[in-house]
Amino acid sequence: MLCKRSIHHFARPLTLISGKTLPAFTLAYETYGQLNEARDNAILLCHGLTATPHAAGEDAGPEVPKGWWNMAIGHNKVLDTDRWFIICIGALGGFCGSTGPASINPETDRPYGLSFPVVTISDMVNTMKQLTDILAIERYHCLIGGCMGGFQVLDWLVRYPEKVGSSIIMGATARTSAHSLALWEVVRRAIVLDPDFHGGDYYDKKPPKAGISLGTMFGMLVWMSREVMEKKFGRSLCAGSHTPAYSLEPEFAIQKFLSTIEDAPKGPFDANSFIYLTKAMDYFDLEHDHGSLEAAFAQVKGKTLLVSFDSDWRYPQEEVDKIRLALEANQAPVEHRCLHSDFGHGAFLYDFHNGLDSLIEKFLS
Amino acid sequence: MLCKRSIHHFARPLTLISGKTLPAFTLAYETYGQLNEARDNAILLCHGLTATPHAAGEDAGPEVPKGWWNMAIGHNKVLDTDRWFIICIGALGGFCGSTGPASINPETDRPYGLSFPVVTISDMVNTMKQLTDILAIERYHCLIGGCMGGFQVLDWLVRYPEKVGSSIIMGATARTSAHSLALWEVVRRAIVLDPDFHGGDYYDKKPPKAGISLGTMFGMLVWMSREVMEKKFGRSLCAGSHTPAYSLEPEFAIQKFLSTIEDAPKGPFDANSFIYLTKAMDYFDLEHDHGSLEAAFAQVKGKTLLVSFDSDWRYPQEEVDKIRLALEANQAPVEHRCLHSDFGHGAFLYDFHNGLDSLIEKFLS
Repeated sequence: MLCKRSIHHFARPLTLISGKTLPAFTLAYETYGQLNEARDNAILLCHGLTATPHAAGEDAGPEVPKGWWNMAIGHNKVLDTDRWFIICIGALGGFCGSTGPASINPETDRPYGLSFPVVTISDMVNTMKQLTDILAIERYHCLIGGCMGGFQVLDWLVRYPEKVGSSIIMGATARTSAHSLALWEVVRRAIVLDPDFHGGDYYDKKPPKAGISLGTMFGMLVWMSREVMEKKFGRSLCAGSHTPAYSLEPEFAIQKFLSTIEDAPKGPFDANSFIYLTKAMDYFDLEHDHGSLEAAFAQVKGKTLLVSFDSDWRYPQEEVDKIRLALEANQAPVEHRCLHSDFGHGAFLYDFHNGLDSLIEKFLS
Repeated sequence: MLCKRSIHHFARPLTLISGKTLPAFTLAYETYGQLNEARDNAILLCHGLTATPHAAGEDAGPEVPKGWWNMAIGHNKVLDTDRWFIICIGALGGFCGSTGPASINPETDRPYGLSFPVVTISDMVNTMKQLTDILAIERYHCLIGGCMGGFQVLDWLVRYPEKVGSSIIMGATARTSAHSLALWEVVRRAIVLDPDFHGGDYYDKKPPKAGISLGTMFGMLVWMSREVMEKKFGRSLCAGSHTPAYSLEPEFAIQKFLSTIEDAPKGPFDANSFIYLTKAMDYFDLEHDHGSLEAAFAQVKGKTLLVSFDSDWRYPQEEVDKIRLALEANQAPVEHRCLHSDFGHGAFLYDFHNGLDSLIEKFLS
């Protein structure tokens, strides 16, 4: 599989949705496979909140862990690199190379930290659109994204429909719910509470990990449904224990599982980026921004596959189905499939070979 | 209303379920109304996780906030103090007077902190039973409790059924679920992460509040259901805002609401107690401890009222109903009512006059 990591620097200013300006910006991206002569075999993969442009590739140590969709991308895999040219671009505001709070502010020669401007999903998509133009890709064969990546694909559909040959949107709704607004706020508070956070100015110090871990542990409580948690862990004690120790240590398997998350996320995860990426999701509301979902999708022509998961109670199928209805109202071809999974919102990452693989394969062929 | 705050010191050692021993212990309790001559008008009220023995009384400043069930207790109220003698005892391991981690360890003359032994719901009930004997109350007319207090009432029913004339159990199941085990673990981690926590040894320092506040914010996301959060807050911006500011401050009403929780809980809440009380709930599992729920309730004679709330998704009516079935299998009179409320697990505190009041009134008469 031909795999390439690239950086593109845009020396011109970027005006953000907020009205603020970034004097310049950089996008890091990875590509897998080869762009054909007709330039019509490109697939844009939009990564989720906790991921990076590193979508494929085996584990190469703590600096380069396995690609987040490695199971999907490669020779003879669902996204076959013999056929498709797959691009994954690091989100603006994220980490791993694209401009974000860890980047050097050219005006101060120091990392932005919390002086980085707030960005939105549309800002991310605008930067991707600029890179797409530079790569001279007229139209993507398909756009694929889950979670935050799904929001990005929806934004492409609304604002650059002519660029979208088709799209696959997994575990994403057309707006961020009140519950998610609450969740992101609490996760951000956890990060800020971390004594190593230092108001976001920690780049020359020990990186803050405890707050992110706590936020991730808390996320687990809402990513995995109550029922699945019961089924998977129940009240089993930690491995090796037959009776409770009545100690202050985690005694139950579910608690031990959560405490392993404390060993910090694998790879270079930046606390400030978590703040900016969740902020970007906060603002996502297509209905509000465009008057109605029908109006938002008025120009969509390509076919869309919507995938929800029955245990993903925070992005429930009823809400995903509103996207289907709005696309159908515009005579755009669309299919919504709700898959069974125990992995809740993480199903597109952790339960790929439970029906999602064949669904995508069929859709692309 | 005759209201009295008392302290009883037990100079003898208390052997805990864990096998460890407390050399002595103290219970703080409040009583409302008067014990009649026949000593048969006593109601034991068991408080929840975030409450204290101060169940009734008006707000008297930050040190003595309004009683947690003030709406229920008093002259002409549901728990009429002209008729009933109501006792609320501070839970072992808690704060506000009963022995807990803030108490002085007689062996070191310093507060226990995290050297306090882990206690269980049964340990709490055992101390209450000792006080009940000292007060020479042969049998309570009724035991009432919600949340952690509901667990205590269930434990009384199982281990001291002869003391229980009748019982009302609100928002409590017969075991702590995997999801609650996970939640309590995360809440405890939030407390420990607080830079003011100092390993639990903070009694001569600034009290740690940020971790508790964060834990409470976490709790809010699971105490209030996703649907109710959407209905109550939706995506409304903070009061006074018409367009997003694209700042790092909370922008949405739900986020502002959560951030007000940061202004720390009212009253003297102790971080260590939060750790010990949630630990106690972790171990609660009647089915496991007694072989089956039917076996657990084998000696119950008094009538029981079980109350669940339709939006309390973490203590759902299906699980509460297992208690009803087990009591019925023992021919014990029982009724289970699921009330409609938007207040989830907090409904017995925050939505009392939405059907719960008349239900209890009818049950007691």
